[in-house]
Amino acid sequence: MSTERPRLHGYWRSTAAYRIRIALNLKKVRYENVPVDLVRDGGVQHTDAFRALNPAGLVPALEIDGHVLTQSLAICEYLEETRPEPPLLPHLASERVLARTIALDVACEIHPLNNLRVQQYLKGRLNADDAAAREWMHHWMAAGFGAIETRLEAWGRGGDTCLGGAPGVADIFIVGQAYNADRFGFSLQPYPRVERVVRACGALPAFADAVPEAQPDAPAND
Amino acid sequence: MSTERPRLHGYWRSTAAYRIRIALNLKKVRYENVPVDLVRDGGVQHTDAFRALNPAGLVPALEIDGHVLTQSLAICEYLEETRPEPPLLPHLASERVLARTIALDVACEIHPLNNLRVQQYLKGRLNADDAAAREWMHHWMAAGFGAIETRLEAWGRGGDTCLGGAPGVADIFIVGQAYNADRFGFSLQPYPRVERVVRACGALPAFADAVPEAQPDAPAND
Repeated sequence: MSTERPRLHGYWRSTAAYRIRIALNLKKVRYENVPVDLVRDGGVQHTDAFRALNPAGLVPALEIDGHVLTQSLAICEYLEETRPEPPLLPHLASERVLARTIALDVACEIHPLNNLRVQQYLKGRLNADDAAAREWMHHWMAAGFGAIETRLEAWGRGGDTCLGGAPGVADIFIVGQAYNADRFGFSLQPYPRVERVVRACGALPAFADAVPEAQPDAPAND
Repeated sequence: MSTERPRLHGYWRSTAAYRIRIALNLKKVRYENVPVDLVRDGGVQHTDAFRALNPAGLVPALEIDGHVLTQSLAICEYLEETRPEPPLLPHLASERVLARTIALDVACEIHPLNNLRVQQYLKGRLNADDAAAREWMHHWMAAGFGAIETRLEAWGRGGDTCLGGAPGVADIFIVGQAYNADRFGFSLQPYPRVERVVRACGALPAFADAVPEAQPDAPAND
């Protein structure tokens, strides 16, 4: 492993970048924050300079150990394999799969349908108004959080983290998405197990230090 | 591990179920196919019986080793951890992250935006006509496959699989998505590295036996 400090190319409000900030904090990896403004001038993520880091034009991109890594769950798995302590995944295969399922419930079923570029497409090309775009967002959050709540109920851990014990990838992905829910007026009240994880994990320093509003590129009075 | 044969709840045309068929074939795990008709009577995936397996109401769900697993990438990781040979992921962390990145490029950036329920929402609630729904689909496939092609070019392996050597998760996810591209008239010609992987891996028995049209629930003359 390189001794150079990792550089996280992210955006304060990106929930995918938020996940990596939490993961790096939990692993106690000190990193440099490199803001990528997704809004200004049509989006810095679309520039050739950024696409050289990630051709998908999406944040986060993490420069670490001489590599440029993208896709937040892949980055978490890499951190887990190269810096095992503290673990972000349980020990048993039968538990690891549950943790990854929750992370993918967020990463595949909620986030891709709600992110900035999809909102732009809905409004710009399908003439969706603000109400329709918001309804779309809430629809997929309800489906996704509903499934997660039912899973947590079925697993019966009933704790401050999805799988009991220390926080890991499942909790990281839920907390990130909960920020977006709050931002777009989607209440988590019908999902008490999700809400408990968000509240409990959100209070931990590794999570609190990663919140969007605490980032250097967050506007002072947003 | 249980000696009972795993049961794969899937649908012939679901590319997520297709991925698991390929993975099980590569791992030489014999399984029972349990068709879940996503179309008939508004979709069997929405029934209480199916939601007891997967509250997200999505295929695949895999009954294996006494567990019910969902989310296709989580299932692949579980298979890898419980049945390591032949591997679906490279050995080195710096390579594993690349394989997972491609899988997630498909699972997060293309598939969620193009699947059945999203098409139903676009047409049923946003009044998109067939042409607009198709344009939407092509838009996200172009973005996703474009990014993957650029990654493969940058990594410079130039082979029949994304990372060189035997096929793994990156190839599995690409081949599944390529089926959908073909189905919806999206040409992969602008993505020669992707096309090569699809052609080369698609010819292998583990992939060929998993194609939608070879499944028991595929209509005879589709």
